[in-house]
Formats: sequence, C-alpha cells, structure tokens
Amino acid sequence: MGMTMTQKILASAAGLEEVHAGQLIMANLDMVLANDITGPVSINEMVKFEKKGVFDKDKVALIPDHFSPNKDIQSAQNCKCMREFARANDVTHFYEVGEMGIEHALLPEKGIVTAGDTIIGADSHTCTYGAIGAFSTGVGSTDAACGIVTGKAWFKVPSAIQVVLSGKPAKWISGKDIILHLIGMIGVDGALYRSLEFVGDGIQYLSMDDRFTIANMAIEAGAKNGIFPVDEKALAYVKEHSDKPYKVFEADADAEYDEIYTIDLSTLKPTVAFPHLPENTHPIDEISDIAIDQVVIGSCTNGRLEDLRIAAEIMRGRKIAKGLRVIIIPATQKIYLDAMEAGYIKDFIEAGAIVSTPTCGPCLGGYMGILAEGERCVSTTNRNFVGRMGHVTSEIYLTSPAVAAASAITGKISCPCELD
Amino acid sequence: MGMTMTQKILASAAGLEEVHAGQLIMANLDMVLANDITGPVSINEMVKFEKKGVFDKDKVALIPDHFSPNKDIQSAQNCKCMREFARANDVTHFYEVGEMGIEHALLPEKGIVTAGDTIIGADSHTCTYGAIGAFSTGVGSTDAACGIVTGKAWFKVPSAIQVVLSGKPAKWISGKDIILHLIGMIGVDGALYRSLEFVGDGIQYLSMDDRFTIANMAIEAGAKNGIFPVDEKALAYVKEHSDKPYKVFEADADAEYDEIYTIDLSTLKPTVAFPHLPENTHPIDEISDIAIDQVVIGSCTNGRLEDLRIAAEIMRGRKIAKGLRVIIIPATQKIYLDAMEAGYIKDFIEAGAIVSTPTCGPCLGGYMGILAEGERCVSTTNRNFVGRMGHVTSEIYLTSPAVAAASAITGKISCPCELD
Repeated sequence: MGMTMTQKILASAAGLEEVHAGQLIMANLDMVLANDITGPVSINEMVKFEKKGVFDKDKVALIPDHFSPNKDIQSAQNCKCMREFARANDVTHFYEVGEMGIEHALLPEKGIVTAGDTIIGADSHTCTYGAIGAFSTGVGSTDAACGIVTGKAWFKVPSAIQVVLSGKPAKWISGKDIILHLIGMIGVDGALYRSLEFVGDGIQYLSMDDRFTIANMAIEAGAKNGIFPVDEKALAYVKEHSDKPYKVFEADADAEYDEIYTIDLSTLKPTVAFPHLPENTHPIDEISDIAIDQVVIGSCTNGRLEDLRIAAEIMRGRKIAKGLRVIIIPATQKIYLDAMEAGYIKDFIEAGAIVSTPTCGPCLGGYMGILAEGERCVSTTNRNFVGRMGHVTSEIYLTSPAVAAASAITGKISCPCELD
Repeated sequence: MGMTMTQKILASAAGLEEVHAGQLIMANLDMVLANDITGPVSINEMVKFEKKGVFDKDKVALIPDHFSPNKDIQSAQNCKCMREFARANDVTHFYEVGEMGIEHALLPEKGIVTAGDTIIGADSHTCTYGAIGAFSTGVGSTDAACGIVTGKAWFKVPSAIQVVLSGKPAKWISGKDIILHLIGMIGVDGALYRSLEFVGDGIQYLSMDDRFTIANMAIEAGAKNGIFPVDEKALAYVKEHSDKPYKVFEADADAEYDEIYTIDLSTLKPTVAFPHLPENTHPIDEISDIAIDQVVIGSCTNGRLEDLRIAAEIMRGRKIAKGLRVIIIPATQKIYLDAMEAGYIKDFIEAGAIVSTPTCGPCLGGYMGILAEGERCVSTTNRNFVGRMGHVTSEIYLTSPAVAAASAITGKISCPCELD
C-alpha cells in the first residue's frame, strides 16, 4: 500500500520505512512553535519535567503576536515570561515587537520552516506551512512543552482526503474562496483528524499566498493538516526564503484516500461564510443586502502582501462607506514595509481605512477592532464562531480580501465585480 | 485693573465688559468635547436633563480615541453609545475610526477650534488649544453633559502666572523640555486653578507643535489653562486650518500676575521627568545609565508631525537596541499619511520600531504597549503616575521625541547629542 504525502513525511520524521493510517509513531520535530497565549502555558508546564531547557535552540520559535504590542498587564506579563525563557535558553527564533508579525506569516517568510519539515505549534493554524510541503499541525500547550524539551511528538498517522483543484480560477477567486467552498462542501468536521491533500492542474494558478490561505484553514474542516505538492512555485519560494535544507516528498501513486473531492476553479464564485460557522457558506451572487459595521483585512489567513495588493487595487481612489470602520492589518513588518513601498498603505488611508501594526488582534477578539452588541463584520480571518470577535450577539462574515475590500466601499457584503 | 489674556476671553464669552480673578461667570461655549471614556458618561447624564439634544450640532465634538479601534467589548459598547448619540443628534464632529485621531491633535488640525474660542472638554488635556490663543480647559463628564445640552459652563475666573520664555532654544530643545522644566520648577500643583500665560521673545522660535505640547501639559502643573499670544505663526496656523471666525485677545499691559517665572531657552537642557510625577525632572546631563524596555513616541502631547520628524531624523539609518520595543503612534490619520509621504514611517520600521494607527493607547494604560512588572518605558506622553502605563511596579520616564528616539537607539535614557 502506498503512502500519502503526509504519511511519507511522518515516516521520515519517525525514521521508519513505512507508516499506515492509524499507526502510533514518535516523530522527530524540525520546529516547535508557541505564541504569547500558549507559550507561557508551555513554559509553566516545563517546570514539571525532569529534563530542562530546549532540545535545540534553533528549532523553537516563540512569537508574541496575539495580544502584542501588549494589550494589557496580563498580556505584558505573558510576553515577559516568553522573553525571559527565550533569553535564558538562548532561543534563536524569539521575535520582539518590531522584528516580527503573525507567527504563520512570519515563519515561512523568515525561512524558519521549509519543505519536508515536521512542525508542531501550540496554535491551531500551524497547519499553514502545508503550503510549502511541510507536515505541520496545531497541538496543545502541554504537547508543545514536550516538543520544546524533547524535540519529539507522537502522532496517530492520519488517513487522507484528496482534494482535486481543477481549472483556472475565475476573476476575483482566491485561495480563501477555494477553502471556504471546500469547508462548505464537507463541513467543519468533514476532515476530522485526516490530511487534506491538494492536487490537480488548478494548483499551478495559485500563488503561494493563495496556498498559505488554503492550508491555514484546513483546521476549519477539522483536518490534522493540509498540504500541497512542492511544485516549481513552491520550490522557488522555499529557496528564496530559507537556507535550511529542504526535502520534497510526494504521495505514492497508489496512495489510498478516504475520499476524493473535486473543485472546478473556473466556475467557483466568491464565497462568504455566514455566522456562526465557516461551513455556512454562500456564493456571493446568492446574497442579498447585508449592511455591515466593520471590515477587517488581515490575520494569518489573509494578511499577506498579495491580500493587501488585491484590497488596495479595489480601494484605490475610492472612499469607504460612511460610518464603516475598516481595519487593515499587514501580517508582518516586512509585509507592512513592502505594502507601504508599493503604495497600498497610502491607498488604504486615503480611502478612510486604518492600518494597524502586525497583530492577531481582532481575529480572536483580542483587541484592535472588537465588536459591540449586534454589530456585523466582514472579515478575512478564519473563524466566525459566536462572540469570536466581541459581543455574543455580533456577527462575522468570512470572505476573501477582494470581497472584504469591495464591501468596505459599498458598506454591505459585495462582490468586487459590482464596482467594475 | 487690567485683565489677563484668559480673563479677556472669558469676559467676552460671558458677555461682560470686565471680569476679575475669583469671579463666578456663566460663559457661552464655542465647543464642547468628549471622548470614548467620558462621552458615554456624559450621554448617560443627559437623560436626567429636562432639555434634550445638543445645543448646537456644530459645536459638539465626540472623538473615540482612547480605546479605539475598540480594545474590548466594553470599549466597543462605549463607541457604539457615542455613535448612536451622534447620529440621533446629527453631530457634525463625530469622527469614526479612519477619519480621526487623538482629539487634541485632531481638533486644531481640522479647524474645529480656533483663536479666541472658549472650549471645554471632558478630558484633562483639553488645555492644548491654548497654543492657538483659545481658552480651553478640561472638565468632568457631567459638566460636559451640561455644556453639550446648554452651550454654557460656569467658571471661577482664574488668576494667572506669567511665564516668560526668553532666548533661542538650544539644539535638541523642544516644547516638551520647556514644559517639563517648568513643571519641575513649580511642581504639579504649582499653577493650581490658575492660568499659565506664556510670553517672551523666545516664543517666536517655537513651532506650533512645540506650543501645543506646552499648552497640553499646563494641566500637569495643575493649571486651569495654558495660553500663548496669537503671533503671526499662530495666526497663519489658524487661517490655514479653520474657516471659523477667530478673534485675537491680548492681555492688558497692566494685567496682574500672581507670579512671574522666566525660562532662558538658550541654556535649557533636554529634560526628563522621572517616575512617578511630571515634576520629578532631571536635566539629561545629570542622568546616569538607566536601561529601558520600551519607548513610546506619540500621544496628544507629542504625536504631531514635527515630533515624528525629529524622531525619524535620529532613527534614520540606525537600528533600535536589541530587546527593546519601540512604538510610534502618529496622532491623526493626516499626520500618519504626511509622515509616510515624508519617509518617516519607513525610517521607523527599518529601524525596528512599530507604527500604530492613531490612538491614545498606551499613554493611559489603554492598550498598544502596556508594561509588565518592573519594566521601564521612555515615553513622550504626559503622565508618569504609578501604574499609568501598566503594572504597578513599572516606570515611565517622560521625555521629548528627540530623547525618546535617541534612547530607542541606545537602549538607555540618552541625549541625541550622544549619537552625533
């Protein structure tokens, strides 16, 4: 029996010739990640361990991005805890405010993760790095603590769902529409503890930023991980960003998949996930007028340069709807700087939006745009659970940056095609 | 007996020929201001009034700047309260996230306040507008509520202290050094319920941004207001920014002052206020090494374009000290855009600082840079009280933008002259 791409990576990480779905393995880790919410929990767990310190100072990433720049005293204490641990253990990849950004944008950008890596992170969207052909998955803070100390993690080898992306995406279709559509098809538990392995001729048309967005939201279908083949585009990205040795794994031709889904990108419509689950999707042309109070463009899902470019091109020379708050959050300092150089930040501010320093901020109800009672937000983030971004009666509509930017101009959920 | 400049304005606002110190008067207001902390309190007070609504929709300014973009659900509810009140009463000067900035930078910039105005605001730094020859002072939320409904406020006419600014400021001396030095001289209650009236040949050398900084911190000496003569520079500012009718008042030649202080600007040193009071001042050359954790450049005191220019010129081409967090906060959207066009934002980010969207944020311990236990911050803000910016054991050192920028590079409280 052949192995899936994910299984091939896990076999290699476990030092085994072969693994099969359901098998329990102990894998060597190439990177262990924690943030300012989970990191302090991990660090406080570690005092219980006999072995102290970090297994490899170059293979631990501690990124204070959720409530930083410090929202309040508690978040300041959490960042201080991480900072002191990082200094005491000479952790290479601890990034201070000013050096950093949202973890899942930062790690690929800085080349801290690469193709073929096995990565765990105490953050559910750690699955993002599947875009560059890594096995990466979110774990709890205690598992991360074990990983930081031992460099190992156990896994039950997942089975897989194959998702065939075919055809060339229609205008305004981005990675976000593809993953929202998929989650709408299979549901938020549609891929529970399984790999989502993306294949098909459509992938060639997807930018790396599209792929990051898709892999990022694999967890929203319950997947253990989401992963893309390492094609020329991915290889170029990996080589440009990282000096780390990389390894390209491919699924065996006779690999077995629990299910196979096909999405025709050429007929896909911009897709919106209504409250209060990412699976509650609607194509844009079936949505009637829904007035909104706020738009957020950013997050580990959609705060990359291409996301900002698409939004800026739509907002350029236009004004946001009166009474709307529009919050743009570049995911990293580099993206911020690149967006500024390209003129996007100017476009946003002249349109009447504000541009925040990189932070997870509003996505998880942290800060920088929390919703009041009954308010509606169009957001490029990844979760629209009840109360996720503020008051329990507020509503989040998940969209692509293109739809979010168009909605910023009209004040209601809109297709950018309406502005043509 | 002649009248002071402040008394002349108050007499006019009360429709009286003459007023004297200690007299109780009822004045007509040209502008009443509230923010997202005090506005909701004012609005909730108004329900007790028989008269409803606002006295003049063009003479009320509601600026959500303290915890906005919304820090949390409570701040979102507060902004919603203001927004709904503003819409219901057709308030002209309600500014949404994206249109606005810190109130005391925004009102002069947008020409909402002008020379000769009588202004109250439910924020202690409302005294800022004395820089353009207005009488403006901070009041409680209930007084603001009365002002919003009736357009009137009662005052006990203040006596005055005259502050003579003489000579040309030495290099690196800005408005912040002057006001810190003055507060150091007279103490935080040195001008209690009195006007600080600035005069002297030194004023000609002060930019409008310098004067805003000085008037802004008059309250930190306990003053009822701080005020500058309307010279050519002030008049040019007023005419450039506002279409409102303005009026220039001058102190009578025989006005009486409780005290007269003189500050020689040519010999002034960059001045730092140590924890935990603005009066605890030290000239920079008498300070030994004090390592810091964070630098904040911004606020209603020092978040204007000139402040950012000075900081950018010092930080340009340099890197901030390792391990330091440096947070730059342009005070308004216009300042942000102008600073970007001028290349300052790029300078800051390339140096390793972060640039926030306009907000009061960390100044009052709101968010965007709250301090952990024992952390030290150099800040261009206006108050260094115990726990003001975070943990009760944290420390704030108040400085000019120049000293803050130099300290950002060295990692300890430093004179920019050290970098020459």
